Amino acid sequence: MTHAQMQEHAVHASPESAISRSRVEFLFDGVFAIAITILVLELRVPELTDRHSSAELARGLRALAPTFGSYLLSFFVLGNFWYRHNHHYRYFRTITPAILVLHFVQLAAAAFFPFCAALFGRYPFNPLGAAIYVGCVLVFQLASLAAWIVGWRTGAMSPELTPETYRRSLRRMLRLGVLAALLLGFYIVNVRTS
Amino acid sequence: MTHAQMQEHAVHASPESAISRSRVEFLFDGVFAIAITILVLELRVPELTDRHSSAELARGLRALAPTFGSYLLSFFVLGNFWYRHNHHYRYFRTITPAILVLHFVQLAAAAFFPFCAALFGRYPFNPLGAAIYVGCVLVFQLASLAAWIVGWRTGAMSPELTPETYRRSLRRMLRLGVLAALLLGFYIVNVRTS
Amino acid sequence: MTHAQMQEHAVHASPESAISRSRVEFLFDGVFAIAITILVLELRVPELTDRHSSAELARGLRALAPTFGSYLLSFFVLGNFWYRHNHHYRYFRTITPAILVLHFVQLAAAAFFPFCAALFGRYPFNPLGAAIYVGCVLVFQLASLAAWIVGWRTGAMSPELTPETYRRSLRRMLRLGVLAALLLGFYIVNVRTS
Amino acid sequence: MTHAQMQEHAVHASPESAISRSRVEFLFDGVFAIAITILVLELRVPELTDRHSSAELARGLRALAPTFGSYLLSFFVLGNFWYRHNHHYRYFRTITPAILVLHFVQLAAAAFFPFCAALFGRYPFNPLGAAIYVGCVLVFQLASLAAWIVGWRTGAMSPELTPETYRRSLRRMLRLGVLAALLLGFYIVNVRTS
Repeated sequence: MTHAQMQEHAVHASPESAISRSRVEFLFDGVFAIAITILVLELRVPELTDRHSSAELARGLRALAPTFGSYLLSFFVLGNFWYRHNHHYRYFRTITPAILVLHFVQLAAAAFFPFCAALFGRYPFNPLGAAIYVGCVLVFQLASLAAWIVGWRTGAMSPELTPETYRRSLRRMLRLGVLAALLLGFYIVNVRTS
Repeated sequence: MTHAQMQEHAVHASPESAISRSRVEFLFDGVFAIAITILVLELRVPELTDRHSSAELARGLRALAPTFGSYLLSFFVLGNFWYRHNHHYRYFRTITPAILVLHFVQLAAAAFFPFCAALFGRYPFNPLGAAIYVGCVLVFQLASLAAWIVGWRTGAMSPELTPETYRRSLRRMLRLGVLAALLLGFYIVNVRTS
Repeated sequence: MTHAQMQEHAVHASPESAISRSRVEFLFDGVFAIAITILVLELRVPELTDRHSSAELARGLRALAPTFGSYLLSFFVLGNFWYRHNHHYRYFRTITPAILVLHFVQLAAAAFFPFCAALFGRYPFNPLGAAIYVGCVLVFQLASLAAWIVGWRTGAMSPELTPETYRRSLRRMLRLGVLAALLLGFYIVNVRTS
Repeated sequence: MTHAQMQEHAVHASPESAISRSRVEFLFDGVFAIAITILVLELRVPELTDRHSSAELARGLRALAPTFGSYLLSFFVLGNFWYRHNHHYRYFRTITPAILVLHFVQLAAAAFFPFCAALFGRYPFNPLGAAIYVGCVLVFQLASLAAWIVGWRTGAMSPELTPETYRRSLRRMLRLGVLAALLLGFYIVNVRTS
């Protein structure tokens, strides 16, 4: 079958199993909006003995510095995931069951992210905590990469997606995935030797 | 009245009581996105004495294993509910008051799910906790089944829903409902004898 | 000016101050979906000494009975608010600044509701707690009623809204408002005499 | 290039980097709906020894007065931000990468707001707490102002945005930004001297 034929096939062969494209987008955006906003629940106001003292509050907030750092990093990571999904999703014409499952894996990783952010913020120098954080990033990236490849191979993509654009995105995702995998490897070695 | 006549009737007889189809979908998707994401709030970062120790963190996380298990299971159950609702909802042409009430029962079960997940995660071997979890699943399934039957009988469904598709879905829902009811019965017997 | 003329006026006179009708709807639905779902965060899993004991868990949950009662009631109240807003909102053709402000008062009451629900669930027989709960319901109802009247008087409503429908809804809202006001009066008298 | 030419250019030059206008709107509305609703999680039901005593509950709630004040203020501030964004966003025809980044800064400030509200509610007379609150408002305002200017200068705006409307909004945003900056300066001086 040619690529165009496969696309035809995908659309016509599974009218029932195909799921509403816009509702998947909605659920995705909703989970991201919530995950990105409940990150803040991990930031707790420090307890002060002198409620009027700026110096004491500053000390309290400084002690929370890693949590703030993790908050900012996680906000950036989730924002970036959302942006790239947005960029890719326009090319998905049909949401087949396989693509839906891979989107749910992405959602699971995103919804789990606030826990990873809390863990990393509390124990920034704990190799296992860092490994879990990077592992969650990697799971998201791999599911995203798999959806991209599966979508292309099964002809679920829009004809607007040219082979060049497909391959360029693929390479970028692979590069980022390798980066996360290397970082994960580094932390796992650290977990073992610590 | 024929089936087509009943459908005509439902549309024309209640122009005022019919509710916006898309807003029900929106509320549904919104509640699911939130319920699926706030499951994570039950996962709490363990307290460590040595903040750099991977071994201590690993022990802390292992103690949370049932909570993680319940989290994953609940994510899967809610995702599955959402998927099947998505699959069915396209056939609802009109949202009558009865269908709306049944959708609210589904929403109540979904919104209550994070509590069931927390209960099951904390006390996985407590028969009452498990019974509440399965009971919540069963309530969702029964409301979903009732909406399906009511929609069909009152002619609120789209003409695209063929009797075969209707019956096939009905049978699948009945099978899953019986499964949940049996599991619930098993746990209730356990509650009694424990 | 006739009613139709006033409607024309409202549309043409304030192209800039008119706000996107669909985004107000979105914010409304979003806040309701979240408020209705985070009610569950008030339900806390009881602490058990024997983690396998159904009897102990049953006792723990029985102690939470008022919280569960308040949860169910609040879910029903918010669901009902949402349903009636849905019913009315279709008639708002233009969202003028006054209508927007009244919608924000409704949103504030809805967003504040989880606190009222928690208060009422913890202290169901405390007259002040009950008064705050009913007061929040009343604020929502009054803002909703005011939006309905203002929308009609300033010609912001769709021509589909007949005077009969307008008055029928008005009477229903007044009846419910009086009911809440009486209940509030009863609790305030109780607060004074307790 | 004329203004119209620049607009043409912006649309045609970056078909790929342009992001879905409606999904940015969705994420924005979603984060606001959540931030505005989870403010309530900071309000905690006071502990009572006599659960039936209105007087004791009243004392408990009075102790929370600053938290309620901060809640109301923050609800108003976020509502106002949302309203003004709504007002401006209709003029953005294309979301360029620069505009997207500035929208993410606005989102970050909005998502961080519940923490600022909690801080300000707990320590209303702490100059550093107040400075952080006002600082967060200022960051939102500056990002919003920058998006407005960048959108105009790069021709990303709709032709419906007349130079007069552009300048009028610009002046209003500048006035509010200067106000927040002065207030921030006042609190910073207080932090230094306290």
